[in-house]
Formats: sequence, C-alpha cells, structure tokens
Amino acid sequence: MVLPGGVDVHTRLQMPVMGMTPADDFCQGTKAALAGGTTMILDHVFPDAGVSLLAAYEQWRERADSAACCDYSLHVDIPRWHESTKEELEALVRDKGVNSFLVFMAYKDRCQCTDGQIYEIFSLIRDLGAVAQVHAENGDIVEEEQKRLLEQGITGPEGHVLSHPEEVEAEAVYRAVTIAKQANCPLYVTKVMSKGAADMVAQAKRRGVVVFGEPITASLGTDGSHYWSKNWAKAAAFVTSPPINPDPTTADHLTSLLSSGDLQVTGSAHCTFTTAQKAVGKDNFTLIPEGVNGIEERMSVVWEKCVASGKMDENEFVAVTSTNAAKIFNFYPRKGRVAVGSDADLVIWNPRATKVISAKSHNLNVEYNIFEGVECRGVPTVVISQGRVVLEDGNLLVTPGAGRFIPRKTFPDFVYKRIKARNRLAEIHGVPRGLYDGPVHEVMLPAKPGSGTQARASCSGKISVPPVRNLHQSGFSLSGSQADDHIARRTAQKIMAPPGGRSNITSLS
Amino acid sequence: MVLPGGVDVHTRLQMPVMGMTPADDFCQGTKAALAGGTTMILDHVFPDAGVSLLAAYEQWRERADSAACCDYSLHVDIPRWHESTKEELEALVRDKGVNSFLVFMAYKDRCQCTDGQIYEIFSLIRDLGAVAQVHAENGDIVEEEQKRLLEQGITGPEGHVLSHPEEVEAEAVYRAVTIAKQANCPLYVTKVMSKGAADMVAQAKRRGVVVFGEPITASLGTDGSHYWSKNWAKAAAFVTSPPINPDPTTADHLTSLLSSGDLQVTGSAHCTFTTAQKAVGKDNFTLIPEGVNGIEERMSVVWEKCVASGKMDENEFVAVTSTNAAKIFNFYPRKGRVAVGSDADLVIWNPRATKVISAKSHNLNVEYNIFEGVECRGVPTVVISQGRVVLEDGNLLVTPGAGRFIPRKTFPDFVYKRIKARNRLAEIHGVPRGLYDGPVHEVMLPAKPGSGTQARASCSGKISVPPVRNLHQSGFSLSGSQADDHIARRTAQKIMAPPGGRSNITSLS
Amino acid sequence: MVLPGGVDVHTRLQMPVMGMTPADDFCQGTKAALAGGTTMILDHVFPDAGVSLLAAYEQWRERADSAACCDYSLHVDIPRWHESTKEELEALVRDKGVNSFLVFMAYKDRCQCTDGQIYEIFSLIRDLGAVAQVHAENGDIVEEEQKRLLEQGITGPEGHVLSHPEEVEAEAVYRAVTIAKQANCPLYVTKVMSKGAADMVAQAKRRGVVVFGEPITASLGTDGSHYWSKNWAKAAAFVTSPPINPDPTTADHLTSLLSSGDLQVTGSAHCTFTTAQKAVGKDNFTLIPEGVNGIEERMSVVWEKCVASGKMDENEFVAVTSTNAAKIFNFYPRKGRVAVGSDADLVIWNPRATKVISAKSHNLNVEYNIFEGVECRGVPTVVISQGRVVLEDGNLLVTPGAGRFIPRKTFPDFVYKRIKARNRLAEIHGVPRGLYDGPVHEVMLPAKPGSGTQARASCSGKISVPPVRNLHQSGFSLSGSQADDHIARRTAQKIMAPPGGRSNITSLS
Amino acid sequence: MVLPGGVDVHTRLQMPVMGMTPADDFCQGTKAALAGGTTMILDHVFPDAGVSLLAAYEQWRERADSAACCDYSLHVDIPRWHESTKEELEALVRDKGVNSFLVFMAYKDRCQCTDGQIYEIFSLIRDLGAVAQVHAENGDIVEEEQKRLLEQGITGPEGHVLSHPEEVEAEAVYRAVTIAKQANCPLYVTKVMSKGAADMVAQAKRRGVVVFGEPITASLGTDGSHYWSKNWAKAAAFVTSPPINPDPTTADHLTSLLSSGDLQVTGSAHCTFTTAQKAVGKDNFTLIPEGVNGIEERMSVVWEKCVASGKMDENEFVAVTSTNAAKIFNFYPRKGRVAVGSDADLVIWNPRATKVISAKSHNLNVEYNIFEGVECRGVPTVVISQGRVVLEDGNLLVTPGAGRFIPRKTFPDFVYKRIKARNRLAEIHGVPRGLYDGPVHEVMLPAKPGSGTQARASCSGKISVPPVRNLHQSGFSLSGSQADDHIARRTAQKIMAPPGGRSNITSLS
Repeated sequence: MVLPGGVDVHTRLQMPVMGMTPADDFCQGTKAALAGGTTMILDHVFPDAGVSLLAAYEQWRERADSAACCDYSLHVDIPRWHESTKEELEALVRDKGVNSFLVFMAYKDRCQCTDGQIYEIFSLIRDLGAVAQVHAENGDIVEEEQKRLLEQGITGPEGHVLSHPEEVEAEAVYRAVTIAKQANCPLYVTKVMSKGAADMVAQAKRRGVVVFGEPITASLGTDGSHYWSKNWAKAAAFVTSPPINPDPTTADHLTSLLSSGDLQVTGSAHCTFTTAQKAVGKDNFTLIPEGVNGIEERMSVVWEKCVASGKMDENEFVAVTSTNAAKIFNFYPRKGRVAVGSDADLVIWNPRATKVISAKSHNLNVEYNIFEGVECRGVPTVVISQGRVVLEDGNLLVTPGAGRFIPRKTFPDFVYKRIKARNRLAEIHGVPRGLYDGPVHEVMLPAKPGSGTQARASCSGKISVPPVRNLHQSGFSLSGSQADDHIARRTAQKIMAPPGGRSNITSLS
Repeated sequence: MVLPGGVDVHTRLQMPVMGMTPADDFCQGTKAALAGGTTMILDHVFPDAGVSLLAAYEQWRERADSAACCDYSLHVDIPRWHESTKEELEALVRDKGVNSFLVFMAYKDRCQCTDGQIYEIFSLIRDLGAVAQVHAENGDIVEEEQKRLLEQGITGPEGHVLSHPEEVEAEAVYRAVTIAKQANCPLYVTKVMSKGAADMVAQAKRRGVVVFGEPITASLGTDGSHYWSKNWAKAAAFVTSPPINPDPTTADHLTSLLSSGDLQVTGSAHCTFTTAQKAVGKDNFTLIPEGVNGIEERMSVVWEKCVASGKMDENEFVAVTSTNAAKIFNFYPRKGRVAVGSDADLVIWNPRATKVISAKSHNLNVEYNIFEGVECRGVPTVVISQGRVVLEDGNLLVTPGAGRFIPRKTFPDFVYKRIKARNRLAEIHGVPRGLYDGPVHEVMLPAKPGSGTQARASCSGKISVPPVRNLHQSGFSLSGSQADDHIARRTAQKIMAPPGGRSNITSLS
Repeated sequence: MVLPGGVDVHTRLQMPVMGMTPADDFCQGTKAALAGGTTMILDHVFPDAGVSLLAAYEQWRERADSAACCDYSLHVDIPRWHESTKEELEALVRDKGVNSFLVFMAYKDRCQCTDGQIYEIFSLIRDLGAVAQVHAENGDIVEEEQKRLLEQGITGPEGHVLSHPEEVEAEAVYRAVTIAKQANCPLYVTKVMSKGAADMVAQAKRRGVVVFGEPITASLGTDGSHYWSKNWAKAAAFVTSPPINPDPTTADHLTSLLSSGDLQVTGSAHCTFTTAQKAVGKDNFTLIPEGVNGIEERMSVVWEKCVASGKMDENEFVAVTSTNAAKIFNFYPRKGRVAVGSDADLVIWNPRATKVISAKSHNLNVEYNIFEGVECRGVPTVVISQGRVVLEDGNLLVTPGAGRFIPRKTFPDFVYKRIKARNRLAEIHGVPRGLYDGPVHEVMLPAKPGSGTQARASCSGKISVPPVRNLHQSGFSLSGSQADDHIARRTAQKIMAPPGGRSNITSLS
Repeated sequence: MVLPGGVDVHTRLQMPVMGMTPADDFCQGTKAALAGGTTMILDHVFPDAGVSLLAAYEQWRERADSAACCDYSLHVDIPRWHESTKEELEALVRDKGVNSFLVFMAYKDRCQCTDGQIYEIFSLIRDLGAVAQVHAENGDIVEEEQKRLLEQGITGPEGHVLSHPEEVEAEAVYRAVTIAKQANCPLYVTKVMSKGAADMVAQAKRRGVVVFGEPITASLGTDGSHYWSKNWAKAAAFVTSPPINPDPTTADHLTSLLSSGDLQVTGSAHCTFTTAQKAVGKDNFTLIPEGVNGIEERMSVVWEKCVASGKMDENEFVAVTSTNAAKIFNFYPRKGRVAVGSDADLVIWNPRATKVISAKSHNLNVEYNIFEGVECRGVPTVVISQGRVVLEDGNLLVTPGAGRFIPRKTFPDFVYKRIKARNRLAEIHGVPRGLYDGPVHEVMLPAKPGSGTQARASCSGKISVPPVRNLHQSGFSLSGSQADDHIARRTAQKIMAPPGGRSNITSLS
C-alpha cells in the first residue's frame, strides 16, 4: 500500500523553555519523523522575550536549514502584542512564506492575550488570508488552580493535570470559536486533548464556523492516568498543556470525531525534555518543562486506533495524517497526494505488521516514551523523502540539512472560499430613520482618555457628554416616524442569516 | 385561586447612569410591582465610582425605606475589585442582611472583572455562604463590535443588538459556569436572554453545577425585532443588555426550560428611562441608557406563556415566580408560601381574566411599554401586602415607605447543602512519592516580582532558577521508584469523581 | 434524621416464569423492603396466558393480603390486547384502585405490543386518567440478536447482555415517548438501565413531554461486567431486561440525571430466582429466568451514590425514594411525607453508619446478591410501618399480612394538570376552503375490507374509487380559491405551538 | 465554471399510484433534469402487488430505455417480504446491475416491514454488498393520526402534514439506524425532510454508523406552510411523505448539515401528479397521490441555499450534487468527476445568473410548481450529456431513448471498507466456563412450534422444558468456578469497543 508521506502539523523542536532547548532538535526530531512515516513537519517559531517575530523566524530557518532531515514549514507564534505586530505579520506573509499564526489563551503574564487582543489579531489574520491558530486553555483559571494546589502542598506532576481540568480547555475553545465567528476568521485549534474540547469544535463546525481541530498522538494513543505514577520521572514525562486527559474514554471519542470529519488533522506537538530537564520542576510542578513525544509514533497510532478498529478506511487515514494538512496550510497538491507533479514523499505501509512502542527502540533522545508498551498494527516498511529512500529493511538513512523549507501562500482555497463568501455577505446597513428631534436629557459625560467612540452609558455614574443643543424642542415629534412597527418587523424578517447561525443577525436589508 | 405574592428577583430602581436616575424609582416601581401581583422585590445596589459598597448600600436603604410600597431586599453589585472588598463583603453579610453579590463580565473599563478576579470573588463568596450572581456577556467582544459598527456608520438602536450577538452571551455563561465549578461556588445567572445562554445553564445543571438561571419578563414576553423599528424612540425603549433576542423562537425555548426546571426563577430587570433620557444616545447607540420595563407585567406574562399554554401547572407557576426565589435567597418560608407564620403577602389570581398590556394603562413613568399590545390571560384581582389589601376592584392603594427591608441569612440550605458536601469531598491529596534525587538540569530563573509560586516553565525564554544542588548525582535513581505503573493506574481508578463531573478529577485516594 | 419511609415503585414478587414463582415472595420481599427502609411497594400484576386482567388482579390481592408485611399497591401489566381490554381497564380503575398500566415493547410472540396497539392503549389510559408504563426494548431486534448469538454458539449469560445492546433500549424509549406525545398520554419508563435510555427521557422532558424515568437499584449500584464472570451461577444472577449495562460510567450518569430532576423515582424491579431456577437456562441464556434483587438495598445505594457523593441533599433524596412516587401514582400525602395526617411510615436514617452488602447477611432467599461487597454510607436504624417499629437495634419484627392494599385514584394532579391543559389546547380545525370542483382523475379503488377511511394512495397499485361525477368541468376553477398564499402563510404563523414542541403542529386558528 | 453533471439520486417517474402514472414520465422527467443541469438519475422500481422484483425491474428498464433522455440507473424497492426475496435480490445484484434496495417503515398494510423483517433484509443486503435504503416514518402512528383527524372532520391537505408530525419521521430514522448498526449494514435514509430526522442521521454518523442522508429539493427549497393554503389544488401539490416541514427554519438547518458533511447527497424524489390526479383525494387527504416536483430545480436550489449563502464552496457543491452519489452507489469516476476517462456529462455553470422558478416556464407536465417564485442565483448555461450539447442559449435539444442504463457493482469502497473491517472485528467469543452441574429447577416447557432456539423465559406463564437430568446433584458445585470476579472484570475491560460505539459490546477477548 503506497501512501503519501505523513505531515506532522505541530512540532516544537526548538521551543525555548527557561533557557533549555528540547532534547529532540531539528535533526533528531525529523529523523524520528521519517522513521515513523512522516516526511514533512510544521514547526512552531516561538519568539523569546525581546526578540521580534521576524528575527525569531530567521533563527528557526537557520537551525532547520542546517539540521532538518525532511521538508518542513513554519507556523509563527504571537506571544505578545506590539505596535509593530501588524507590520511583522504582513512581512512574514508577504516575504517569508508563512500563512499561519498562533495566539495563546493561557500562560498568564507570559504570552496570554486578552479576548480583545485576540479579536484584533484574528481580524488582521483574516485580512491577510492566513490561518489563526490558538492554544486554548483559560490561563486565569489555570493560574488560580496552580496557586491553590501549591498552597495545599501538591507539588508533583499530578498537580499539573489537577490544575488544568477539562472544562478549562473546553471553555477556551468555545471562547476562541466565538471570537473567530465574530471576526469571520478561520480558526485552527491546536492540541485537542479532551472530549469537551473536541465537542466544542464539532458543534461549532455544525453551526457553520470555519474551524479545524488537531488531536495529537498523545491524546489519541495514551491517557492521563500516568500523572499519578509513583515514578516521578515517568509522571513528569507526560506533562504537557492541555494535559493528557485522565478520562480513559477520551481517545475513543477523539478517534470517532476524527473519523466522522469533525476533527480533521493530526499532529504530535512533539517537544521533549530529558528527565534531568524535567527535574527542574521536581519540587514544583509548575516548573516542569512542558512537552511530550509523538512525532515518530503518530502514523502508527492513528492507524491502530482508527483503521485497525474499523472506524476509517485507508483514504480517510491519508486525509487526516497528510492531505487535509496540506490543504488547510496550502501546500497541496505538492504534498499530501500521490501524483505526477507532487513531491516524491512516499510511504509503503504494511497494515499487517505490528510493532510495540518502547523507549528501548525509539529514535529519540529521552529516557521515557509516553506510549511505552502500546502495540500498533500498521507500520511503514519503506519511507521515501524527496525521492530518496530513507527507511528500508529497518535501516534509517537520513541526511541532516536535506530538508527544505516549504513556503506557503495565503488564502488557501480549502479554507478561504467560504470566508470570502461570508465577507461579501456580511455587509451591514443601518435602519434608515428620520432624525430624532425630541427632547434630550442633559448629562455630563467626562472626557474619556484616548477614545471617543466607546463611551458606554449603562454601568457607571458620572459620565458627562458635551451639552446637546436641541433646537427643535417644541413638543415631542420624530421626523420620519410614520414608519410603524409592522414595517420594522418585516424588515427584521428579511435579515440575512449568516451560514449556520441560527441567531446571529449581522445584516439587514 | 390564592397564591403567595410574586417575588421579583431583579430590579434596578436606583441604577445611576451618567448621572441620571431611572424613571421608575422605588416608589413608582414598587407601586407597579403591586399592581401586577408582585409583593417583594430584590433591587441591585450599584456603587458609583469612588463610593464603597457599604456606603452605596446605605444610600439604597435610605431611599428605599422612605419610598418602597412593598417589602424589598438588596443584592450588592461589585463593580471593581479593591483591597477592601473582602472586608466590605464580610461586613455586608454579617451586619447588613445581604447574601448575594453580582460581578460583571461586560462593560469593559468600567466594571468588568477578569476571570482571575471572578475566581477570587467566587471563592470569597463561597466562604461567606452567599450566592454569586453574574452579568454574563463578553465585554471584550462587545467593545470590538461596537467599534466596528460605529466605524461603519451604524448609530441607531439596531447597533446595540448587532454588537451583542447571542454567542457573546452564551460564551460568558459557559465561562462563568466553568469558574463557578472550579471554585465550588453557587452561581446565579441574571437576565437569561437567549436560547444559547439558557442551554448553557441547563447543561451545566446536568453536569452537577449548582447554578440558577433568571429569564426576565422581556425575554419571555417579547422579541428583539423591535430594534429595527423605524421609530427611534420605540427602538431605544428596548435597549438593555444582554439585548432582547431577535430570534422569535426564544421565548418558547425559555419557557420550556423554565417548565422543565432547567431555569428556576423570573425577574424583570426593571430599569426604565424616559425617551428624553434614552435620547442621550440618539447619535450613538452606545450612549443609550440601558434598561426595560417588566416589573408590573411579569406575573401575567409568565402565566400566559407557561400556564395558559399548558407547559406548567399552577404549582410550578408559584415556584418560578415566588417560591424558588425565596429559597435561593433564603427568605423562605417567610415569603413564597401561603402558610401560618408566613408574611401575609397574597394574590388572588383570576386565570380566566384577560388584559392587554399598554403604555396607556401601565403604572410606569415612561412613554413606551415594550409589551405594548401583548394579551395575557391570568390577572391578579386582589393583592395583599403585609396583610393590607393594596389592589382590589382595579384600585391601587399603596403607601410609600410601607415596604420593609428583608434581611437574609447566609448559607441557604436550598443552595448550600450540596456545596458543603462537595467541599468536604474535595480534599486533595498528592501522590506519595520518594524524593526525586536524580540529576537536575541547571537553569537560571529570574526573580519573579511579587510571587514565588506561579513561575511557569513552558512558554517563556529566560527564566532562571537558583542553581539546584544535587548531592546525590551518582547515577539515575529514584528513591521509592519501585512503585510501578499498575499501582498508579489502580490509584487513578479510585479517583472520586465530583458530582456530575465526568472528567474533572480533584481528589484521589 | 427522620424521613418518610421509602416507596419501591417496582417489584415483581409473584411474577410467574415458566411455572416458577420468584424466590422472594410477598412475605420475604416485603420483609427485606422493611429491613432496608422501604415501607411501601408497588408490585406488578402479570396475567398469565388465559387469565383476565381482573382475575390476575384478584390473585395478586389474595396473595399479598395474606403475606405482605408492609403496605402495597398494584400496577397491572397488559400482556396482550383483547376486545375486552377496554372494559377491564375501566373496571380496574373504577372499582379496584388501580391507576397505572404497563405495556411491553419486547418479549415478541409473548406480550409485545405493536406501535399501533400502544397508541390505542395510551389513548385509552389518557381518557381514564391513569399512568402509562412501558417496558422499553425493541423486541424484534432482541430476538434477531438472540438467534444470531445462539447460532454462533454463545449460550452463557454474556449472550443475554450481547443480545440486548444499549441502543435497543434507547430506541424503544424514544419510540414510546413519540407515541405518548402524539397520544398526549403521561408516560412512565420502567427500569432505566443505560445512559442512552436516560438521555432519551431527559430530552423528551425538555421538549415538554410528560414523562418519568425509573432507574433501579441495579442500574445505580452495580454494572454489567459480571455477565462475563466465569462463575455461571453468579453471572446468571445478573440476568434481567434491559440488562445491567457493562459501561462502568452508567451509574454516575444516572445518578446525575436523578439529581438534576431529569429522572424522578427509583425502584428495585426486585424479582429473584434461586440458582437452581436460573439454571433452567444453563445451556441457553434465553431460558434463564429474568430478574435481580434490590428491594432491600435501594435506599442505601441511592444515599451512597447520590447524597454521600454530594450530588443531592436530603430533601432530594426523599423526593426520589418516596415523595415523587407518591405524587405520580397519587397516594400523596398519605405516603411520602412526614406530617400530621400522613401514614406513620417512618425511617430514622443514620447518614454516618456504613454497611457492606452481602448475601451472607441479606434478608433474601437467594444465594447471590448482585451488590456483593458494595459499601454504603447511610443506613436505616429504626423503621416504623403503620406506626409500629419493625426494625430497631438490628432486629426485624415483621407481621406477614399486616400490609394493606393502598387504592389509588385517577387523574393525579402532579401528572394530569398539564395533560388536561394540553387536551384543551389541542383542538384542531381544518382550513375553511370552498369545494374543489375541478376535474378529477378516475381511478378504481378496491373495496378495502373492514375500513373505509384509511385508504392510502401512494404506495400501492390497484386502488379504485367510486367514479367521481364532475358536474362543472367547464374549465379549471376553485370556488373560494381567491384566498392567496399570503393568507395561508399568515394562518400558518398563528399556529399554536404545543408546549415544548418545536415542530409539532396540531392546531391552527 | 465547468462542473460534472448533476446526479439526482431519487426519482419516481413511473411510480404507480392507484393505477395512475406520474405526470412526468421518463421522457418528460429526464428532459427537465437536463434543463436543470442534472445528467443522470436514479429511479426507484416499485413492484405492484403480485409483480416480482425482477419483473418490475424489467418493466422499468423497458420504459426507461425507450424514453429516457439522460443516463439512468435503478434502485429497487422491496414492498413485501417473500420466500423468494433472497433469490430475487441475489439475481438483481448478480445479473442486473442493481446495488441498492429500499424498505418502507410506513404505509401500513401495503408495504410496511416489521423491525424483524428489516433486520433480516439488512443482513441480506450487507452480505450482498449493496446499500440499504429506507423510507423512514412510523406507519403505525401515521395511521392512527389519520384516523383521528378524519374522525374530527379534517379532510384537506393540512390533514396530511398534521398526521405526519416531525417526531414520527425522526423516530423511524433512529430505529432504522439502530437496526442498521446491529446488522452492520450501510444505511441510506431517503427524503430527509425535518431537523429532527437530519439530527438523527448526524448523531448516528458521529457514533460511527455508516449512514447517509438525502435531503431533497423540496426540503431545501420551500416549507410546509402551504398545506394551509386556501387554494386546495396548490395545497395538494405539496403532498408528499414525509411531508415538507412547516417549521420555516428547516431548510437552513438541513443546508448547514449538508455543508458540514453530516448529510451527503441531494435528490429530488420527483414524482408529480396533475391537479386532476391529486383531486382523487379531494374529500380525503389520505387519497391524494403523493409526490412533488424538484428534478429540474435541484441544482439551482442547492447553489442558492448553500453556495450563494456562503455555507459551501464550489467543490462541496459538486460533492453533494454529484460526486458523493457516484461514490456511494458505485459509478464513480464514470460519473461525478471531470476527468479523462469519465463520461462527458458536463455543466457550464453561471454563478452570477439568476432565475425565478415558475410553473409558467418549467419543463414539467403539472400545473403547480412548489417552488413558485423562488429566486435562485446559479444557473446552468450549457449542459452536455454523453458528449452532446443538450442545453445551450436556453434551447433544450433532447433525444428520448438516448439515455443508457448504468449498471452498478456491489461493495462500493466508499461504503464498504469500514463495513468489512467491522465484520472482521465483530467476531464474538463466549466466556469459557466449566459446565454448570448444580441443581436445576424442573419446569415444563411446551414444544414451541417451528423453533427451538427462541424460547424466552421471563414473560410468560406455562413454558415447559424437557426434564433435566442432574447426575451430580450432590451439593452445589461448579466445575471451573474458581474463577473470581476480578478476572471477569479484567476481561470485561479488554472488550473491544466497536467503532464509535460507547456502549455496545459485541466481543471480548
């Protein structure tokens, strides 16, 4: 069975954490990717404090170009909002082949955005024709829970999952979806880790929101009971955010939604740290560097859980491991397809072979593999990257630096056709009315610093407005007020309902 | 048919807006209440900028004691978080008979709280045994939408509803519910105006959250198509937040949930302004003072929509208009019941009589009635307040100042029995592990100003920690690491699931 | 803590199965009931083939009057539809104090009714003011699955649960609810055993259907994994229909819905057989007599799962174990309440005491207890029946024959107020139209045997109608056809929506 | 814009009703199809009473081969279950190019199947590799409602919709899905007419059922308010089953689900009768021949509602109007694709052109068009069938008899890959137990006529079994009974959950 090579939509092979770099860098990480049947990755650029988006992008390019064994592309994270953010995004989109940006709803005081900032960034991303990604967790609640747990003396890895309850993830997804719908911006939710979060994505999709959800190897292939392992190092190996859910039925639910098309792509969010690195948080779970493995295991885990279980057929497997990613991020049909003209990234897949995942045999620089002992039917027997055989007979033959950067254009059809149609439809017209010329109560509105438009009347005391001069205070009359209610109702009935929206009225004739 | 007098859980008869006071003050408002069969109201104290909660409470008491025609009690709004908030709440609870406080998720830059502040206020309220109320709308999104609409030249009342889409209300309810669940605090959602918001309350209740939802006369008895009226003054009369929903099936859905017990109480959120007062926002819908009528119409509208339609029987009518309010806010059985020992607040109800609501005949100081023309079966024929007949043969005989303040105790059984049980159950224990004594990566964590506990590792660059001294770096060993995974799993399975929560793990044996 | 004595809404202490009678008869069963804090039971009369409903009722009365240790009442099952069924129901309702009847959707070829029969029985029950009960499983599918499994050689108790999948239960509940809604008949679903079935009840309630759901001790207190026990006798002890669900999260879900009011009452469906009796089906699981224990354990299991877990407070516990049953079946406030004038059936409950359920100590005549080893906080310390102490200091002092039959009146307010209101509202009027006098195609309709009204045109071949004489075939005209579409639409908009129903249009003005 | 020609999955151009044939036969119907951009239809063969499936198939072939203007294929309806049904299906599949069969859940006493028959037919269809179609309405309830309405004097077309409430459709869909899941047979629901039915399909898909839903032109493009038209002839023109839903939000909901992939194909169910034919039921709505138009309007209605509204892009439009049908019924890529090797059935589509549907301009033989006045953006400007231009510049140039029969193979990959995988997985093994050799109660089971396997113990009285000889009645022992509960539980946990199914346990290791 010949398949297009896998595309891992989410890796963090250079993610800087407290000055540390991940154990599996571009070289090791892409080597493991190829070993598992993945021939392209999309890594996240995360700009350190004081580093511009553009400069960070260049750092990533430099490291990856010299070390990556397979083709790659880059998402750029927006950890803080600057005056210059707009220009930076424009430059990245125009000159650098980037068409996807991520905002954080968690990590308070570090990179968390407010809802207002997210709305503005989403509006900007929509104008640029890029894809908005979101790390969805409510950072305020997480911080409160962390405080509470530490105060109660909970310091181990179980504190991590206890301070990131499922609701906190689902809540953030729902909020992100709400903002994206208002801004008419396509949304991509990274790391769908729980049933609650996945359901929010599925429901939003049904309401017509252009939204994509990314479960990862970890949420599909293991569960969060390990946070309570008495082996601290093992428990710490599972620390990532949102956490791997302790509900053992999570993976079954996520694979069902992946099979029904409610979720569309799979990544790994591969970002690994050695036990010694993890041990920075040995006395305080909030200091454990976050991240788990999955880059090598993804294809086999998805096959085992989705195809071997009868939930998907092979075509759907290719869609969720490769093609959909290429379509959403706009490098289809260069990748994600077996065809003349497409890149020769191929996998020969053996659905009958079986392997047992183990740290003893994995291609990673870490002591623990979170999928230890998981048995997968479905294994790549030959992997071809850029036309060269890199895996055969169990032998990996990779070339650091052989991987090329894949630039991506904006306005992917797969994502933006509907967005554009809705933009056209979303024109709003006010109700034509005569001027109100009746009496007006005189109030004193204070000069509001910095803004004239947002003054809001209801909820404060001493707002003053410039005195209003009513020239025609002779009685109570409304010019143009002949219009009656029946007309108003009829107008309202003509309201153009936006797709899928049962109640959101944004326009009227 | 003799019923206990109605209890209106939500009025704002003194709400200060831009220096203006509502058209229907304590005297006029309670007179209208009695005319409609309501014999007790709960008004909201809203402290102006610079006024303490206690001082505001005293202002309200003073005004109400001299003017109210029926018994009343007071909720206190928390428009901003101070160092002194905790003491003020304690004093109000201990000395002033207040057991309910409201926080705002909207009105950015004026009284909106962050999620972190809400969590802390909810924790405080829970410790005090009070009820947390919330005005649920996402103020960030509303502000962005207001800006966008004003920029597009939409200045009329239709801009109000367009800038407050249903999703923004539902989102905030879901967030409030999430925070309340985490803080184990009972939640009361004021002004449930949309199907989306109501569904969120119902679903949360099903997941075991102690939550109550309050639809109001306006959301049960009319719809938001009137925002598009060509008559500006009429359209402006409907401006309130969250807005009255334009979806004409809203009222049917809310009355169904009220009938099935998913929503529990009804208020009016009565807060009226004359056309001249509303006209402050004639050129900018964000300056229209918010609020609608409903104090007089509530009982009849609920009867018409719920009982006359066959959704409820009379007992359920009494529950949602009177008894449940008395139980939640802890003045049952003094009110909400016809029994020896209860106050003599009674209504003789005629289910066969009919009235048509109109501004021509209402007992209000405003030109428009948002229920104009609505026909209701079900009318009070006699109303008795404190044992005195105040309505008979269509004659109202009220006495300003006759209304008494009804103090309320904390920890209402109806609300807090489950909260207490869960508090007992929510004790958390960490996993007993030996100390990790393997190697630890050295990192430099910067001194974090003001806090030592919350340092978060994953998402930032240059955090330094004090160098960690590893005395036992001889190899890689974990004391106590004999514990294996099977034990960990078994432990996880014993996790005590909190009520209704399918995934939130807060405790383990 | 003094509570009203428990009411077990569902027992089968005389259920005849293949000529065998249950191991726990009226004497033993009611003794066990009292031991567990239950002071009244409602047993099901099941008429054997050839026995009339009335005769069976008399058999039951005779046995129970001589043996029952606590008060009891009787539901009557309708195992087959006769010409005389109508008169029998009328007699039972009028003369015998019965106000509840059960129909079976399963047990094909024995007592299963068709949907058409159910509709007619429900209509009859509604006219009589009784409560329609239903055993909800799709008997057709069950039979097919039984055949398939036996053909594959599955003969053990696991075959029972495999042939009764959850969907088959949920499907029948949905169908029963649909029929009940159409017939405007109150519905009571016995033995809610699965999440799917419970959700169907909850959703129907939200759509306004008058429906009640009865989870039982077995579905709340254990799970169906035991069907796979290697101990045949133990596995067989769990055989009941619908089966106890193997999904281990079932009990948590059912208790959540019981706590939120979506389910309202709890029974035991106590119907026990000794191992020797069960062994009739040792080579064929379809021959194992069905039924499990639960009469003694019910109160403690509900307390443990609902109150001790923090899902309910004590008042809600009383409601679901006693009061709601008394209200639905119309013997409130005689039972279900601690008050002057009510029967002196009381329990002194110790919420702190603990007991471990075991066949070694139970008051039953069977070798296995399906709750073996379950630990319950919450134990009755004193039980008083009809004013006499029957349990104290662990000593049971019961008197066979002391139990009285409790007759019940029709039209319980708790159930029928809404039904009556809807009956009033459900009047249907046709559209007033002029006579169609245009041309009519001539067809030959065959004389349909036995019925003239139901001839259906679409789906058959040779239906003939009496030739139609068109006297006015001059052109194509419709008298009264001036009515245009706009009028038709307006009419449609005035359609009175039935309570809770978003789409079911039954009337128009 | 060049698109593959449309495929109409559901027409009834020869449907016999009371000896009448539809107004639009194969010639007129396919002409209209081509005029609207549809280049292939799938018609339903309906065997009259006394006609075998094979004979009916031949009748259809004969008529269509001589008259059809575009390519066609045939579904075969199974109106009744015979001994010979199995052989007939096998012959149709093997020799005649048919791979889809429809069963009826309605039309009682004419063609309605019982659930048991449906289960058996579905099992047969699955073994043959065909697709099971279902007309989903509860015929029992419909008949009862028809009786009730006629008794109340409702005789007009409004009686049709009142006797087919939405719940009755949703109920049948849920039941069909349940049976299909049990039988592991792919299910295709024809004529999805209501939100309730569509939601059932969507939810089943999410639970992993292989199910497809077919909304039709009528349910997407108009609504059921017209049944109340005062113009009898107009109202009668809308009569079809399930009826067009009066809920005006239905079309919006169906198009949302079609856009999100929850529904997959669109048909027309075109089956028209002249006013004179409809008038057979002028005094009794149950005699009105059923069926509406839609074959010509389908493509434009779907474009208007889905693409012009921004819910879909063009690719998705092609999928739901053409490609998905070709994949499900296994004639892809011959149809449904623009590619070398595919048939030259093409449409040049003008998304900017607009047309207003009217009986004045339609290509049909009926007086009324149910979409009268509907304005559609999106019109075919050129239509090419089998390489020949049949529509250009508004001129239709069709050739009766030019249409070819398209035979179809079984086991379409698009449908059957998952079915096969599940079949492999669904092997069931019993629990290995020692023989029960304890005492067995002696009962007398009657010889059951015709079957030995299905005897059911619980619900009947006098079943006798052959006396069981217990050779080892010395005490109570179970060989092999050492197995304890823990082992049983562990076994249960290993249960292989079938795809999407959260509770249906069909196998264990």
